[in-house]
Amino acid sequence: MNPNAGSPAQSDPLPSWNNGASKQAIIEYVAKVTREGGPDFMRPEERIATFDNDGTLWCEQPVPVQFAFALDRLKALASAHPEWKETQPFKAALEGDLKTLAQSGERGLVDVVVATHAGMTTEEFQRIVKDWFASARDLRFKCEYSAVVYQPMIELLTYLRANGFKTFIVSGGGIEFMYAFAERVYGIPPEQVVGSSCVTQFMMGPDGKPVLMREAKINFVDDGSGKPVAIYRYIGRRPILAFGNSDSDLPMLQWTAAGAGARFMGLIHHTDAEREYAYERAVLGSLNKALDEAHAHGWTVVDMKRDWKRVFAFD
Amino acid sequence: MNPNAGSPAQSDPLPSWNNGASKQAIIEYVAKVTREGGPDFMRPEERIATFDNDGTLWCEQPVPVQFAFALDRLKALASAHPEWKETQPFKAALEGDLKTLAQSGERGLVDVVVATHAGMTTEEFQRIVKDWFASARDLRFKCEYSAVVYQPMIELLTYLRANGFKTFIVSGGGIEFMYAFAERVYGIPPEQVVGSSCVTQFMMGPDGKPVLMREAKINFVDDGSGKPVAIYRYIGRRPILAFGNSDSDLPMLQWTAAGAGARFMGLIHHTDAEREYAYERAVLGSLNKALDEAHAHGWTVVDMKRDWKRVFAFD
Repeated sequence: MNPNAGSPAQSDPLPSWNNGASKQAIIEYVAKVTREGGPDFMRPEERIATFDNDGTLWCEQPVPVQFAFALDRLKALASAHPEWKETQPFKAALEGDLKTLAQSGERGLVDVVVATHAGMTTEEFQRIVKDWFASARDLRFKCEYSAVVYQPMIELLTYLRANGFKTFIVSGGGIEFMYAFAERVYGIPPEQVVGSSCVTQFMMGPDGKPVLMREAKINFVDDGSGKPVAIYRYIGRRPILAFGNSDSDLPMLQWTAAGAGARFMGLIHHTDAEREYAYERAVLGSLNKALDEAHAHGWTVVDMKRDWKRVFAFD
Repeated sequence: MNPNAGSPAQSDPLPSWNNGASKQAIIEYVAKVTREGGPDFMRPEERIATFDNDGTLWCEQPVPVQFAFALDRLKALASAHPEWKETQPFKAALEGDLKTLAQSGERGLVDVVVATHAGMTTEEFQRIVKDWFASARDLRFKCEYSAVVYQPMIELLTYLRANGFKTFIVSGGGIEFMYAFAERVYGIPPEQVVGSSCVTQFMMGPDGKPVLMREAKINFVDDGSGKPVAIYRYIGRRPILAFGNSDSDLPMLQWTAAGAGARFMGLIHHTDAEREYAYERAVLGSLNKALDEAHAHGWTVVDMKRDWKRVFAFD
């Protein structure tokens, strides 16, 4: 798959990317770090690539997928929690009042996630999430959520792996939520998924078999400055390539950039209201400081409208 | 390397193991889970193998290697901490009074580790640990610590990987301490090392480059019931094979055993005072309840004296 080794007639590894600066930057980077004996060569074990998930690998609008899951769970569990009808942020969430819900801030969103993701074993949680994915549909595109992944990014993941990279997700989303689809959708196995987590307890189940019980308590939030911390704790190496789409990815990109040797930092810029969404300053996914830094340091800013021939496989 | 595929004349993949029940159990297990179409076949991605480190992959007597490191660091840092001369457990540690130190319990041991492992960046810590490994010598065998690894276990790791297993360390030891040697000594890359961790903060260093700063605060203790919790959080799959040597490995073995399909649970029993050590009820590494469970459930108990032809490569 090394683009230097093939003939000019070889097939394009990134067919959903328009020819232009972003695609060229990716291909040139991969070529130089895989060229044995070249000045920028990186050994395969150093080829660690980390990707944010929401807004980087799949669509995060109008609400992140995990939050859509939490809202559906809240409705399913509401009859057992009559108090939710009178208490914010649950009242707003049950009524679909996203504006009031957003006003409750990160704290309110976390409350809804925690209330709907705890009190079951890890195996039960996997079953619940998988069942939900089978029936839930994206609000705008009316397809399964696993279809609102960005086709150009799937091609990029495949291309990197074909060139000896190990691809990781490093997301603010829940790690166990991602376990339910990351391998099937992205080809990324659970041991290469890094995310936020709740406290889990090992205990003996009623049948005498041990279980891991999920508690309504945050263990770690893998967002912002938590991302490089988690990368080091999970992967133990500094990525040489990282992709994000918001200010909460900036520390990951900064930490990637600060390593020795050739580095690649990429940002997805959501500029395509027609095929996807155009946003920079949403409640979640705000892109502000990271965009300034990308321009200042020459990181690759992928303009979705300009750079992607197709956004989704169904386009 | 599939033992079913080769001729009888093929070389022994476990030459440092005596022929006997333990070696036979390992070889039969690997054969049956790798036999395509067989009733016990496990797909390669399911072949997750987890190993405790201290006392399972290398020697943990008279004190675990990381604790020897902590004691050396304590001496190196003592001049900047005159208060340690008057305060336990530091006083006992500095005086080499291991008995008094042991009486301070796990809390005392943790205090010494935390005091000597914090207040530097993750990169500085890696340098310190690597430098220490280059000069430190095992108290009894007078060799580098990286030489007191069990040769039969190195062969087992290699044999498993040759049969499509992914090998992980799941240790109560510090994850960053293990990053410094796991790949070189065991062939296990940092992204397959799970261990205890301290709180780490992302911040801008004096040169404007971001660093990860190690704080004197425990983040997670990967021991006992923490091991299955960490396995799920780091690996996201249940191991099909696990090896430990003490009661603190029992939850990992129980959780491994409780999965569907063919499983392998192994315990190293330290029975060889001549070539290594003989112990069951040490302060660290107590093997009591786990041994009873192993016998009750037919897990493989490796008797070091009986089962291992060689203990160390230098034997």
